Formats: sequence, C-alpha cells, structure tokens
Amino acid sequence: MREVSVIGIGQTPVGEHWEKSLKELAYESITAAVQDAGVEQFGALYVSNMISGQVTGQMHLGALIADFCGYRGIESHLIESACASGGSAVRAGILAIASGAHDVVVVCGVEKMLDSLSDRVVGALATAADAEYEVDQGANFAAINALAMKRYQYEFKVPDDAFAPFSMNAHANAVHNPNAMFRFAISKERYLKSAKVAPPINVMDSSPICDGSATVVLCASEIAHKFAGKPIKVLATAAATDSLALHDRFDMLEMRGVRLSAQRAYEQAGLTPADIDVFELHDAFSIMATLSLEGSGFAERGQGYRLALEGEIAPHARIPICTRGGLKARGHPVGATGVYQVVEVVQQLRGEAGATQVTDAKIGMTQNIGGSGATVVTHILGK
Amino acid sequence: MREVSVIGIGQTPVGEHWEKSLKELAYESITAAVQDAGVEQFGALYVSNMISGQVTGQMHLGALIADFCGYRGIESHLIESACASGGSAVRAGILAIASGAHDVVVVCGVEKMLDSLSDRVVGALATAADAEYEVDQGANFAAINALAMKRYQYEFKVPDDAFAPFSMNAHANAVHNPNAMFRFAISKERYLKSAKVAPPINVMDSSPICDGSATVVLCASEIAHKFAGKPIKVLATAAATDSLALHDRFDMLEMRGVRLSAQRAYEQAGLTPADIDVFELHDAFSIMATLSLEGSGFAERGQGYRLALEGEIAPHARIPICTRGGLKARGHPVGATGVYQVVEVVQQLRGEAGATQVTDAKIGMTQNIGGSGATVVTHILGK
Repeated sequence: MREVSVIGIGQTPVGEHWEKSLKELAYESITAAVQDAGVEQFGALYVSNMISGQVTGQMHLGALIADFCGYRGIESHLIESACASGGSAVRAGILAIASGAHDVVVVCGVEKMLDSLSDRVVGALATAADAEYEVDQGANFAAINALAMKRYQYEFKVPDDAFAPFSMNAHANAVHNPNAMFRFAISKERYLKSAKVAPPINVMDSSPICDGSATVVLCASEIAHKFAGKPIKVLATAAATDSLALHDRFDMLEMRGVRLSAQRAYEQAGLTPADIDVFELHDAFSIMATLSLEGSGFAERGQGYRLALEGEIAPHARIPICTRGGLKARGHPVGATGVYQVVEVVQQLRGEAGATQVTDAKIGMTQNIGGSGATVVTHILGK
Repeated sequence: MREVSVIGIGQTPVGEHWEKSLKELAYESITAAVQDAGVEQFGALYVSNMISGQVTGQMHLGALIADFCGYRGIESHLIESACASGGSAVRAGILAIASGAHDVVVVCGVEKMLDSLSDRVVGALATAADAEYEVDQGANFAAINALAMKRYQYEFKVPDDAFAPFSMNAHANAVHNPNAMFRFAISKERYLKSAKVAPPINVMDSSPICDGSATVVLCASEIAHKFAGKPIKVLATAAATDSLALHDRFDMLEMRGVRLSAQRAYEQAGLTPADIDVFELHDAFSIMATLSLEGSGFAERGQGYRLALEGEIAPHARIPICTRGGLKARGHPVGATGVYQVVEVVQQLRGEAGATQVTDAKIGMTQNIGGSGATVVTHILGK
C-alpha cells in the first residue's frame, strides 16, 4: 500500500458548546488542522458522526460541512460505525490516499450531543446496540457495560475499587489538556462515593455526554515534505467486527473484535504490544479499558485491571493510556472520539503533549470501539 | 489505480416488505450477490443506508449486517450521503480494493422505509436537506423539487405535460423488471390527472417510499477470472458536492455537483457522453432527471426534457435511461438506490436485461444524487 502520513491536526475543546452549531464546531477543527498542515487544497473530506440525524435532525453532513467550510464541490461522505465512526473515517481517508484517488484528504469527526434532552441522547446512543435483542429489553449502554463488568468481577474475583485507577489516571492527565472537559483530579474516595449509574458502574466509570470536533489532515508520505506539518507515519490501519449484542458472543469477556483488529494492525506494522509507547484506548466505561488492554495483548485475560492498579498506565509507566484524559475526562463526543485519539497520539509523537508527554514516544496506537465491541478500528502511528 | 471489476449482483424486489426486517432484506441481496459471484470469502462489507437510525432505531448497521449474514469478524462500515449513500458506498468499496487493503469487497445498500408512519419517513428524508435553512421553513423534498421545477418551467417556458414522458418511460420499462415496485405502464392522461403533491409536481413525477436491498461484489480485475461471475470493469468512479440548500446556489437550475461528478468520471474513463450506451440516472422527481441529463452533457441547458419528449430516452433510442424502471417505477429505497443502479447497469452490460435490453450495450453510467444535488456520485462501467 502507498504510505500515508498525518500532516495536520485540529480540535475544539470537548465540553458544552451551547453557542455553536454542529457545522461551526466542525469548521473550527477543520480550519485549525488545515492551518497546522499548511494545506490549501485537498481532494476529499470524510466526516464521522453518529447521532446528528436523530438529535439535530440533520443527515448528509459530508456535503453540508464541506460547503460550510468553503470547500463546495469537493468529494465528501459520512462514515458511521457508532462510537467507532471516527476511527472508521480515518481509515477511509487513509485508503482513499492509498488507492491513488487523492493525495491529500481531510477527516473530521464531529458530534453535538447536548442540544437535545439527555433521555433522547441516551436513546440515540442505544441505536448502536442491537435494537431487537438489547434495546427492546430496556438496556442502554451503561446497563450493557454493567453486565460485562459484573460478569468480569464475578469471574475473576475483582472488587469494585479495583477499577478506580482507570478513572483517576484519566482525570489526572486531563488536568494538563486544555481541550479536556474535566480538568480536575479525583481521589479514590471520590470514585468510591460517586453515584451508581447502573451497578456496579458509577459516574466515575462513565464517559460524559458532550460536544466536540477533531480533524486530521492526511497525505501521501512521498509528498509530505511539501507541507508545513511534521509528518507522522501511518504504520497500520485495521478494522474488525463482532456481534452487536453482548449476550450473542461466545464469551462476553473476550473482545474478539479488539483481538482481530489489534492482530491485523500488529501484523501490518510488524510490531508487538511491547513496541507500543503510548496507547489511546476506548475507555467509554472502565470495563472497556480493561478488556481493550487484554484483547490488544497488553495483559492476560482477567488481568487488565491490574495494570491500572499497579500504576502501569501512567504517562511514564509501562503502557501509558488516556494520556490526554481519555474518553472519561477529555470527553466522548461519540462520532468524533476516534479522530481525537489520532490527534492525541500525533501530539505525543510530535512531543507536544506537555506535562503528560510520554518520554521519547516513537510509536503510538489508537483503538476506537463501536457499541460494546462490535466495531473496532486500530491505528498504529510512528515518527 | 488498481483496476476493479463487478463480479456479482443481487437484489430484493423493491416494494412493501412487511414480513422482513432490515437485516433480512440485506441478507437476501448479499446472499444472492455472493452466490452470483461464486465468492466464499471477502475482506470487507460496506453498507449504505440513510434513515434506519431515525425510523427503525438501529444504527451501526455495518457490524450488525456482517454478523447476521455469517461474516462476524470482517471489517464493516456504513457510508451515508443521504440518497447518494449507495453510490458513496460503491465508491468506498472500489477504493478499498484499489488501495490494496482488500482483494474482494461486498457493498450492500438497504433501506426499510415502510415500518414507520409516512409523516415520520418524510421528516427523516428531509434531514438530507439543510435543517436550518430549508426544513425549518417547512420544506420537504417534494416542495424543494417543486421550487426547482417551477423555476425551470418559467425560465425555459416548459408546459406541465412536457415532463410526462419521463414517468411514462420509467413505468413502461418497469413492466419487464421482476424487481420493480410498479410493474404497469401509464398513459399521458393518467400522468396529467394524477394528484398534485407539491404543484407543479404530481404523484407521477415522484418516486415512492419503499423497502429494498441491492448488493454488488467487487474484486481486483486481475483476479476476476477466479470467480464465477462475468466481470464488468469499473472505468470511472467520481464524487462531487454542492450546497445542501437549493437557494444557496448561484443558479438553482445548474446542477454543479452533477457537472463536476460527471466531468471527473468522463476524464478518468477517457470518454464523452456520446460513448455512453445506457444511463441509470437519479429520477427521484422528473425535474431531477431533466437536470441530470443536462448536467451530465446529454443536453444543453433548458433542453433536457426534450430528450424525453422526442423519445430519445427509451431502451432503443439515443440515451436510454431508467431501463429497469428508475427511481420512479423500480422504486427508491433511498440508501439502497445507488447500488440498484449499479446492479442494473451490470445487467445491461451482461445482456441480462430482458425486454428492455439495450442492444449491444458496452458502456453504462450510473448517477446517484443526494438531497437536491448536494452529493453526486457517478460510475462508468464497461465490459
């Protein structure tokens, strides 16, 4: 495959953007990324979003955003795979360049969740689960993740407080990220006292409803020197699926989509988990972080939470995760999250991650998960 | 670019499928296409759909359909660009093969519109238009097309009955297509007497709300001989955008997205409109067929309707369109339509189009339009 590089990144702060519309958020991150790259023209815009049709009453975001940002006429499409939409769109952008169809492509993830009542947003998010077998039974995503977490605790004899370090690490890192939603550290006490959302899941296990947009500019590596941005190479791009419904898996504690997606990525890059310096994973709930670490080969089955307990996920430890706050504390604007992850790994590889910079980071990985693991997109980047 | 061929096609009849769910419709067309191609495995499934999130309460269709059809684990994503989603997904599939990421890819368009109240469906379809500037004023797609048609009639002094031959041609051809929704011919009298939907647009100018699924199997041309299907080559794939809102264009009677998309396709294929033997265009409303013929270079500005009036759009005439019934009479299951168009052009190029076979068809074109022209995807195929 023709080699592709990331040459520009842009993002809005994640949070409550009452004064900005969906397309204005997209404009902000696209403009920042295009300026960062020093690009004037590009061939295609790939947009990722999940719930705008249901919440804002606006589909057809590709053409809408291309036009609003001043690029009327260029090719544009929307890619959706629930919360993995951002990763899927980045992959589509990479393949468009690898195919030779375009030399420079822009990928923008955008989500505006707060414009609607929270009940409606929770309902819209639940359309990522199996409507006939999960949602019709009244299960939303907190409930589905609670089933997995409860089973995990039972199977591996893990107490409630063992998950606290995931949330504490995410919040501690978010303090230093100006674009994070929750820039405050939390104590173990605060974690333990936080309200239950769907037992055993509490508020501090859960990523928030929020607004945000992130953008990357991609180009063929052979022309990357023409632009202003420092190129970061795409070493691997891979996607895999699993059943939507949790109960439909052979083993609800083995994330098969994670395993397949990570395996495919390692194979493409010729790397192993030991080579990864920083890993932006999909901690929509603490249990997902645990299972992602296990499925991606950083821990044995039933041992993922130990990495957090033993302090191995901090920026200067063995496998730094959520270095900019993760989904928990940077925030999880669902369709945009996968693009935020790539932006943040690029910051790490450029050495622009400030107080949570991973020392001498050379290779970074992102993993974006849709639903409770039905779509998984993994990227490995290197400088 | 690595050359790509279509090696398998499948479709369900378009119509009212009360007894089948969205994923069952997709299963039917995917199974038919995979059998037609003689393919056992493939690398990725691209799904196109527009309104399932709003109407069925189910997003995340890529993984859902991959799993339901027995392909759990493979890569899958959904592509959306309103009514052009099918064309966008076919293009994504082609680029995935051209990039070298996969050798064989399946593209499935599926839409189930009838499960909901028609008001809700009309509202869901309107999310393809500009929510802030068109839909908030109460405009649905019939109203938006009526504005364009009225302006066209005023500008070029065209009477109401001049559009009748588009509908008559589509219905006459649908009689011979077992998968068409309306298999009956209509007279000019019936056209003129049909109820107005949004004057000057009447029922016979308008494509119907319906259910359906169509699938194509694509592979790298160099390995096409390994499979059972007769390969049809992709000679060009191109996409372009315009503003979502009709009033926001410099000229609402020039489809700039159509012109750009067609120009890019002709350039890639090294062809001109005179080389096209059959053209499956996007006749969501008669006025769209007119403007598509003009924007694609088959008629001068203000002259597209004359091709229909003069009998030049019939299967044995100068530029056959809607040879299997078109959106008007085959039906327009919105997110699936672009894939139906490719399936039908493949039927023509294989010589499998029965009574409406275009004699000695060698080169066929499809054009899938989202909204009132904001996304346009054009494909040229050849044998």
